[in-house]
Amino acid sequence: MKKVVLAYSGGLDTSVCIPILKENYGFDKVITVTVDVGQPAGEIETASKKAKLIADKHYTMDAKDEFVRDYIFPAIKANAMYEGYVIGTSLARPLIAKKCVDVALKEKADALAHGCTGRGNDQLRFEAVFRTTDLPVIAPMRDMNLSRSWEIEYAKKHKIPVPVTKAKPWSVDENIWSRSIEGGKLEDPAFVPPEEIYQWTRDPLKAPDKPEIASIGFEAGVPVSLNGKKMKGVDLIMALHKLAGKHGVGRTDMMEDRVLGLKARENYEHPAATVLLTAHKDLEKLCLSRAELKFKAGVDEAWAELGYMGLVDEPLYADLNAFIDKTQERINGTVKVKLFKGCCMVVGRESPTALYSEELVSFDGKTMDQKDAEGFAKFHGFQARLYKKLINQ
Amino acid sequence: MKKVVLAYSGGLDTSVCIPILKENYGFDKVITVTVDVGQPAGEIETASKKAKLIADKHYTMDAKDEFVRDYIFPAIKANAMYEGYVIGTSLARPLIAKKCVDVALKEKADALAHGCTGRGNDQLRFEAVFRTTDLPVIAPMRDMNLSRSWEIEYAKKHKIPVPVTKAKPWSVDENIWSRSIEGGKLEDPAFVPPEEIYQWTRDPLKAPDKPEIASIGFEAGVPVSLNGKKMKGVDLIMALHKLAGKHGVGRTDMMEDRVLGLKARENYEHPAATVLLTAHKDLEKLCLSRAELKFKAGVDEAWAELGYMGLVDEPLYADLNAFIDKTQERINGTVKVKLFKGCCMVVGRESPTALYSEELVSFDGKTMDQKDAEGFAKFHGFQARLYKKLINQ
Amino acid sequence: MKKVVLAYSGGLDTSVCIPILKENYGFDKVITVTVDVGQPAGEIETASKKAKLIADKHYTMDAKDEFVRDYIFPAIKANAMYEGYVIGTSLARPLIAKKCVDVALKEKADALAHGCTGRGNDQLRFEAVFRTTDLPVIAPMRDMNLSRSWEIEYAKKHKIPVPVTKAKPWSVDENIWSRSIEGGKLEDPAFVPPEEIYQWTRDPLKAPDKPEIASIGFEAGVPVSLNGKKMKGVDLIMALHKLAGKHGVGRTDMMEDRVLGLKARENYEHPAATVLLTAHKDLEKLCLSRAELKFKAGVDEAWAELGYMGLVDEPLYADLNAFIDKTQERINGTVKVKLFKGCCMVVGRESPTALYSEELVSFDGKTMDQKDAEGFAKFHGFQARLYKKLINQ
Amino acid sequence: MKKVVLAYSGGLDTSVCIPILKENYGFDKVITVTVDVGQPAGEIETASKKAKLIADKHYTMDAKDEFVRDYIFPAIKANAMYEGYVIGTSLARPLIAKKCVDVALKEKADALAHGCTGRGNDQLRFEAVFRTTDLPVIAPMRDMNLSRSWEIEYAKKHKIPVPVTKAKPWSVDENIWSRSIEGGKLEDPAFVPPEEIYQWTRDPLKAPDKPEIASIGFEAGVPVSLNGKKMKGVDLIMALHKLAGKHGVGRTDMMEDRVLGLKARENYEHPAATVLLTAHKDLEKLCLSRAELKFKAGVDEAWAELGYMGLVDEPLYADLNAFIDKTQERINGTVKVKLFKGCCMVVGRESPTALYSEELVSFDGKTMDQKDAEGFAKFHGFQARLYKKLINQ
Repeated sequence: MKKVVLAYSGGLDTSVCIPILKENYGFDKVITVTVDVGQPAGEIETASKKAKLIADKHYTMDAKDEFVRDYIFPAIKANAMYEGYVIGTSLARPLIAKKCVDVALKEKADALAHGCTGRGNDQLRFEAVFRTTDLPVIAPMRDMNLSRSWEIEYAKKHKIPVPVTKAKPWSVDENIWSRSIEGGKLEDPAFVPPEEIYQWTRDPLKAPDKPEIASIGFEAGVPVSLNGKKMKGVDLIMALHKLAGKHGVGRTDMMEDRVLGLKARENYEHPAATVLLTAHKDLEKLCLSRAELKFKAGVDEAWAELGYMGLVDEPLYADLNAFIDKTQERINGTVKVKLFKGCCMVVGRESPTALYSEELVSFDGKTMDQKDAEGFAKFHGFQARLYKKLINQ
Repeated sequence: MKKVVLAYSGGLDTSVCIPILKENYGFDKVITVTVDVGQPAGEIETASKKAKLIADKHYTMDAKDEFVRDYIFPAIKANAMYEGYVIGTSLARPLIAKKCVDVALKEKADALAHGCTGRGNDQLRFEAVFRTTDLPVIAPMRDMNLSRSWEIEYAKKHKIPVPVTKAKPWSVDENIWSRSIEGGKLEDPAFVPPEEIYQWTRDPLKAPDKPEIASIGFEAGVPVSLNGKKMKGVDLIMALHKLAGKHGVGRTDMMEDRVLGLKARENYEHPAATVLLTAHKDLEKLCLSRAELKFKAGVDEAWAELGYMGLVDEPLYADLNAFIDKTQERINGTVKVKLFKGCCMVVGRESPTALYSEELVSFDGKTMDQKDAEGFAKFHGFQARLYKKLINQ
Repeated sequence: MKKVVLAYSGGLDTSVCIPILKENYGFDKVITVTVDVGQPAGEIETASKKAKLIADKHYTMDAKDEFVRDYIFPAIKANAMYEGYVIGTSLARPLIAKKCVDVALKEKADALAHGCTGRGNDQLRFEAVFRTTDLPVIAPMRDMNLSRSWEIEYAKKHKIPVPVTKAKPWSVDENIWSRSIEGGKLEDPAFVPPEEIYQWTRDPLKAPDKPEIASIGFEAGVPVSLNGKKMKGVDLIMALHKLAGKHGVGRTDMMEDRVLGLKARENYEHPAATVLLTAHKDLEKLCLSRAELKFKAGVDEAWAELGYMGLVDEPLYADLNAFIDKTQERINGTVKVKLFKGCCMVVGRESPTALYSEELVSFDGKTMDQKDAEGFAKFHGFQARLYKKLINQ
Repeated sequence: MKKVVLAYSGGLDTSVCIPILKENYGFDKVITVTVDVGQPAGEIETASKKAKLIADKHYTMDAKDEFVRDYIFPAIKANAMYEGYVIGTSLARPLIAKKCVDVALKEKADALAHGCTGRGNDQLRFEAVFRTTDLPVIAPMRDMNLSRSWEIEYAKKHKIPVPVTKAKPWSVDENIWSRSIEGGKLEDPAFVPPEEIYQWTRDPLKAPDKPEIASIGFEAGVPVSLNGKKMKGVDLIMALHKLAGKHGVGRTDMMEDRVLGLKARENYEHPAATVLLTAHKDLEKLCLSRAELKFKAGVDEAWAELGYMGLVDEPLYADLNAFIDKTQERINGTVKVKLFKGCCMVVGRESPTALYSEELVSFDGKTMDQKDAEGFAKFHGFQARLYKKLINQ
């Protein structure tokens, strides 16, 4: 009996994959896995119910705490942005894939399957993890290039409940860290997106007329409190989504280079991420040396690139984390940000481990006086002056 | 007869330098140079008038167009930010210093002088240029460590007009690109700055309740139009200051690492810069390849670091500009940004030289089909999988 | 009538491609192109003769001067090494592919073909250029996975002359810049390679017992003379191969990461490249500023990576060349290297554009005295000291 | 009673510092510290004997094991080269300085002193560590700008034994890792250095006529055996100096950028370092992923720069070590190098933790076949092709 484990979201694509995996790929048993990384309320239940109707066996796994601890917190420590913007979808994919692999090993499955097409990044992220096993990887959507109308017809024939709502002209992916919206009219880089694509953030026009200060406490690079109240990761993120989202904070509209090389216009929402990354970066400026800040920018960029590509098993990923964790030992303190009409601006910060000493900084003390700077100034740009003389000869 | 050329701002520090250079350093003639790089209306005239009273000879030079063309436009092409924020003061210093050097050569002066203290970056920026000559450099403020009350007393004795206004508890530097505010209470990183420190940007609370779209046209990386109207550099920047400043856009509050190694809290205003750099970076994402974007980020960082340090004569600066100018040949098009209550957000962009081809991107065409991605996926993370197997052994 | 243009080396693989392209892919006419980039004497003639027997039309093109001017000279300016070693084969592939594209356009061909397998880098380098056209690309060796014995049988059946010499247990690729040897027993990283794999370099054991000094003259980063005698590029490289090869200089034994992610053991010979790159890098240390040397190392690495991958059409390649060419304006002068028993060591260098001024460097002059260094020393490691105090608290 | 601790080498400069510190700086007691980091046999004893004659108290400390464990082994893991060459002198300075600080704290000294001039790097390296205390730092040589003849006269007057040997026309610094030679005629970059400047390496002309293979065993990035024999760090390095030095291996002739910005011609000897770094880098190519190799090159460069500047207290140094140590967990195995007439060439390597799997690499297995590469090839250089089409329009 041939068994396959399918990463299952409950949507039309992954639902039609179930009979397809039997009819077209010869599997006897399809085991579905739905991993809760913070999808919208209802989506997990719907997926579970649907799976029980149409799959041979189903697993629902709550991985929210693990997602925050092992993926989002490291992302905060790495200020994780790809091409300048918050990564989100990509952080969750490896975790979902790992949970599928766990099930496949437990169930002694013969293959792993996902419902991604051949156009995007997710196929690559799933397979980077799937292929660490020696099991074959099946991607029916990529293989078969199906149209939506064919899928609906096929679903009806196989008694798969079809969502009654009309398909949106764009596609959405959500997890606890970020919400991405892409496709349809949004593909045109010049098209100004309508307000309705955003759901986590209030239209700044309708945001409160009074700014609000949020105070974020950090320990070893990780957020531990909001406005002075200690909170667990998931709760802190959810509370910040509500608070910053109310003020319209946390939207992105950008051109992005996908892994395969295609440029795509993407829109994102991530209120908590905007606040936490803004505050974290600011605190680093107070606590890390200039040399660390400069070098860590390159480390962070490499981290985010691996994260974006879903390559959490690349050994470089662990090496970068070792560097980052060493720096974060001194990232402790509190940052105040002002939230107002879509903006998030730091207005103050303090830290017990700041690289900052009023006593030493003062030039009047015994360790330094202003005249010392003269010697420094004489060497500043020394080679530039040699060059200038050379080219002026 | 010994002559010295002094960079002259009209303020108390540089004014008392004039008699000091004679009495304490033995010069017979002090020639003052005031360079207009967009200081606030009135400051240049005041300086000129004052200089005519107390200096032996005075030059006022309007360098605004040169500043925009040779310093600000390259800064836009380089997305010039130091530690994440717009550089401004540092861009103007080398130009002011160069004008002083020109005067010193013309006047056959025996020395160059500036009024900077030994605590900050400006002494280094001035001297990096001054010392390309073989003339000695005099820095009375750094040498003598004077107090403000002593300076006022000394000024009165030497019939130097003393500003009647009370000294602000912070110091300000302005040019056409940026306004910086530092010192006093602001030095405390945790102190939330009062609204009054900002002058170019309206309090977002009092900004218009309706957003405004600004459309910026670029040619070869340089802004050439605003809302469809062709404009010269100085005019475009002034117009954008007004437009974006009205919406409260363009403030920075940060910890910064000075060249000498001290961390300092800095506040900045730069409405036009925020809009132009936001739009420029966005357009680059549409027009440059991923490899270019990634590499140029490092080039831009190096450029900004040289800019921040005032090292425009470092040969690397010219090399980086050669790289940047090559990339900018394809940075043409229009970016729309929404200005509202302190926020500046890109909402659409288009370019005749975009690296974007709908035909090729479509996987249905003859050049690509979805199945090709399968082969790619098999190699994605190939070494990561070898590593995973190795550590799982 | 369907026509295909085939990159033709004259070897067994590309020879059997000719009938295969007709029988298996339905082409009516196979046009072969052999590009002379400095393959061993005889190989080009043999290929041409063979092609005239079995192809429908044949082009032989001498591209040696173009190869040196447009590929090798830029590689010298970029100190082109991938993972620490001289790149060679990869430099020639894009040029060969471009010549094939030129023929395809002239002949209005319907497709382009190459004889590379699916295991290595060359398929990627050829296709990166082939696919800049919209013509389909055919790779029969990759498609069909043929064995050597099958190929010999097939060749006999189609009257293709089969080389009488026994196949070497390793495969070789040569051009004017480098000779690569790989495969067979050499694949074992621990296998100590036998002397016979090397042909351009004498066994150091049998090299002359007296060292020889070679003096290389550079202008704008490009070698222009050997031992004081002006020489054209191709001639200078050939003369250096002879001179340095006689002394056993220019061998590499390394583990290399191929583009697809596989590690492979590779052996190379490149006597002229070793001498020219050693001398060029040394001269740069005399003429470029520290900031330039440091930044250019990253530029060079990116250049070599693109070169290794055959991505000369990537726009970043042109951007990097703009940077490099700007730096090379000051790379003029002469470097002396000692060649002896496999070693190449710089022993002296001089330049009219050195960033070096005995007068200024002397601390006794008017511009500097030793005491100035005290001020500098006080700021050296300033933040490190703050950190040390912090962690010692 | 005012006490000062002086870093003491036993040479003329540091010897005359002893009475100078009393006569010119008012100290009552001069405590000398000589740290054995592998200086030539005799130098430590001479210094100790001399100190007992002329200093008030003296410490001799053997730090060879500590130097190897805490400075040289990390340098090997970091492939530590500055501007392409082995760093040596700079590695020992912070350790010597730290020992002086230890003594100063123990003796409750009032100041720290060194005998460096204001021209070189060593003053900066000593002071970076000295100034982590709040003690004043005294540098008599830099302050007083003394001539050698004055020093000899002064020494005689103060009954300080003056070396009878004539001063060499160049100055030498030795520790267990490296020997540096600089100054005098060598300052001319074009001067071909005479054989006599080298002492650790035999003239390659007179080296054995038979090559020798050295086999180096590594564990976690650190050398642990030579030719199969387990050895402690100091012993292994000493044995390699003898072995490689006999074959003339380990010389450097280069232009170097000093910290203050001056270019200087430097000559070095480091037989063990050449062998160990060559072998270590080669083993990394077998065991680390391409992404790790590429990123670690930047980490190594930053490490070496901090090392060169003596900034081992910069927090970035610890962060980089965290990254490096993580990578080195998998650097295990054996590398064979051939030593002959000045050359050191890797000829084979093996590792139990290689990132290399013959099974997986083979394309004939179940996980990969050649045709998969076609899909990869179609995306290789995808954006380059869009660019090519754009500029050809």
